[in-house]
Amino acid sequence: MNEQLNFDSLWYGFNAATMVNGQYSAIENAAIGVRDGRIAWIGPQGDLPAYHAAQEHHLHGGWVTPGLVDCHTHLVFGGNRAHEFEQRLNGVSYQAIAQSGGGIAASVHATRQATPEQLFISASRRLKSLMRDGVTTLEIKSGYGLSTEHEMKMLEVARQLAEHYPVDICTTCLAAHAVPPEYQGRTDAYIDYLCDELLPEIAQRGLADAVDAFCETIAFSPEQVERYFQTAHAFGIPVKLHAEQLSSQGGTTLAARFQALSADHLEFMTEGDVAAMRESGTVAVLLPGAYFALKETQRPPVDLLRRYQVPMAVATDINPGTSPVLSLRLMMNMACTLFGLTPEEALAATTIHAARALGLTETHGQLSVGKVADFVCWDVESPGELSYWLGGDLLKTRVKKGENSHVDTH
Amino acid sequence: MNEQLNFDSLWYGFNAATMVNGQYSAIENAAIGVRDGRIAWIGPQGDLPAYHAAQEHHLHGGWVTPGLVDCHTHLVFGGNRAHEFEQRLNGVSYQAIAQSGGGIAASVHATRQATPEQLFISASRRLKSLMRDGVTTLEIKSGYGLSTEHEMKMLEVARQLAEHYPVDICTTCLAAHAVPPEYQGRTDAYIDYLCDELLPEIAQRGLADAVDAFCETIAFSPEQVERYFQTAHAFGIPVKLHAEQLSSQGGTTLAARFQALSADHLEFMTEGDVAAMRESGTVAVLLPGAYFALKETQRPPVDLLRRYQVPMAVATDINPGTSPVLSLRLMMNMACTLFGLTPEEALAATTIHAARALGLTETHGQLSVGKVADFVCWDVESPGELSYWLGGDLLKTRVKKGENSHVDTH
Ligand SMILES: [Zn+2]
Ligand SMILES: [Zn+2]
Repeated sequence: MNEQLNFDSLWYGFNAATMVNGQYSAIENAAIGVRDGRIAWIGPQGDLPAYHAAQEHHLHGGWVTPGLVDCHTHLVFGGNRAHEFEQRLNGVSYQAIAQSGGGIAASVHATRQATPEQLFISASRRLKSLMRDGVTTLEIKSGYGLSTEHEMKMLEVARQLAEHYPVDICTTCLAAHAVPPEYQGRTDAYIDYLCDELLPEIAQRGLADAVDAFCETIAFSPEQVERYFQTAHAFGIPVKLHAEQLSSQGGTTLAARFQALSADHLEFMTEGDVAAMRESGTVAVLLPGAYFALKETQRPPVDLLRRYQVPMAVATDINPGTSPVLSLRLMMNMACTLFGLTPEEALAATTIHAARALGLTETHGQLSVGKVADFVCWDVESPGELSYWLGGDLLKTRVKKGENSHVDTH
Repeated sequence: MNEQLNFDSLWYGFNAATMVNGQYSAIENAAIGVRDGRIAWIGPQGDLPAYHAAQEHHLHGGWVTPGLVDCHTHLVFGGNRAHEFEQRLNGVSYQAIAQSGGGIAASVHATRQATPEQLFISASRRLKSLMRDGVTTLEIKSGYGLSTEHEMKMLEVARQLAEHYPVDICTTCLAAHAVPPEYQGRTDAYIDYLCDELLPEIAQRGLADAVDAFCETIAFSPEQVERYFQTAHAFGIPVKLHAEQLSSQGGTTLAARFQALSADHLEFMTEGDVAAMRESGTVAVLLPGAYFALKETQRPPVDLLRRYQVPMAVATDINPGTSPVLSLRLMMNMACTLFGLTPEEALAATTIHAARALGLTETHGQLSVGKVADFVCWDVESPGELSYWLGGDLLKTRVKKGENSHVDTH
């Protein structure tokens, strides 16, 4: 006997790129049945079995993809650095800006000064831009507080954003982003502080879904990162790493040793790093916005990552200094244009592989039965158009956990 | 005696960057009085004389700039070339794509096949994206019809868009964009046809506000362009030119001899070209979207243009092959990041200087008394943010000829 399917909602009138196995896996004239916020049925509309749906939604054309996942953001911060951007283009040197309190120090200062309410309001504006362009899940890092009090403040704001908006948010403690002014010249003492005080407090309050660091000559050494990762693991928190952005430091291989969820940036990674990531199942997160804004010329080794079958994700890296990026779709274009990804790889990189970078493989990032019903309907004739157009307002309908969730930016 | 001012509407509660003289010329806590679609008063709100306003609008913060002017677009075309973009990233060569009917030939074919209604609908979608990001005036070129019938069809669609949407549109006949298939190997005969048949017909119907050509080894020589320009001038139509994009051809100096409104692209221009533009008052239109998408490395000589005080404009060049760009604000960022413009120059380049490139100096592109009341209120703390952010939905309010004209994209 064929039982009748019961849906809370049925969606039809579109083609779908399911991204199962990281490929378009296109379904023409698709339908999606939703029950309890999950996908209960997906396939060609003509194959629908007998069903009852409390609501039916005809989307009148376009392509549906999984909701986009932005797996690397610094969305919460005080102030912005448009003034520095303008100074640099008027000929003021990086050095002169840093000496007058600019650079990351300016963001740390502004973030420490800001109230939680101020951080919430400014992050909300940026979040709405991301959502309007198709994001249904994102990661938010701390890293401009650099003290227990202010890192907690940032992470709490990230948690509040998730309560307030139709979006899933994974939080990441990036207390090892930079050495704060009060620890200048005492980097090891700052790592001690993170391991002995800050991480235990944040772990106890459950504020961080992951722990991240910046491994670079201008930030923390692999040895320092290792101690910090050991503490994170002692609290059962998975790690990830900003690695090999400006030079080859061995951070990626270190991250792989800790079974990191992801290693991010990776312009200067070696083949040994790639092999280590393959072993550990670590996702390579590419950040073309920072590469573009910093006018870098060393591209991440995409061919090597393909050869070793390391999954590639792409993210905005939205931050006030090196990647003032408010569109994940724009990063799909830049991943293609600047790094040579195919549009199919770029879409996998912002759906299924980005979900994996957040440890959400089981629930997010693809359209298949049992997954959370997060999807976006785009006003395009092929999924390749999502990477092809630069800018533009292509989103028709945004569905979060089975609910139509239009974003009114202003 | 102080006469009372009568406004149809008064706008206040914002700072303004007027762009008079090509500079921010900032007014804090500004007010704008509108009468008959023109700016009747602008200044600090505290300086407002006695007035009566039929409507008052408090904008609650942000910065107001002149409505953006996109002075170089190929907005109307049939099909798109996302498939070619995808093919190239999957390793198919340009040559193989061209041999299978791709490239500009594909757009000519699709545009000739399309009905005016189809062209209107697809162009509308792109136009709404541009408008939503702040554009209140734009130029639209023909150039994918390449016959009297189909070039007229394109220009008529451009005129219809202006009737249908709150936007001013300048039309440009770009029949000398490429040699159509039926004239392959007979370029001079095609120029004869343009001069003897096509331009006279289009001039008689008043369909073109300007005439444009593509001067390049792969398109038309300076001698061929010269004949075509002479015909345009005989009909009293001003000219402009796609010049020095891929090589130095002398097209810019030719354009200057014809007092061209603008010369566009300009990556390979010489100092002599710059001097000629200064003499003729021709605007230099920079197109960073095509530079980015084609991965060019030769940048236009911005320092020379500054030294000779040639006004610089920036435009999307939106077209399906080399610049699938749907945001003029994104081009402001790319003009800064890729070409080294300052944010102030980038804003002048999309307002006052872009208006000049369209021959609209007297009416558009700046906020001063007597100018058309086209302005945009942005959710930013400084005008530099318009160039700083990549992507994002920053527009709060869009005012066209004094009327609030919100754009609902979908
Ligand atoms: Zn980052
Ligand atoms: Zn063009």
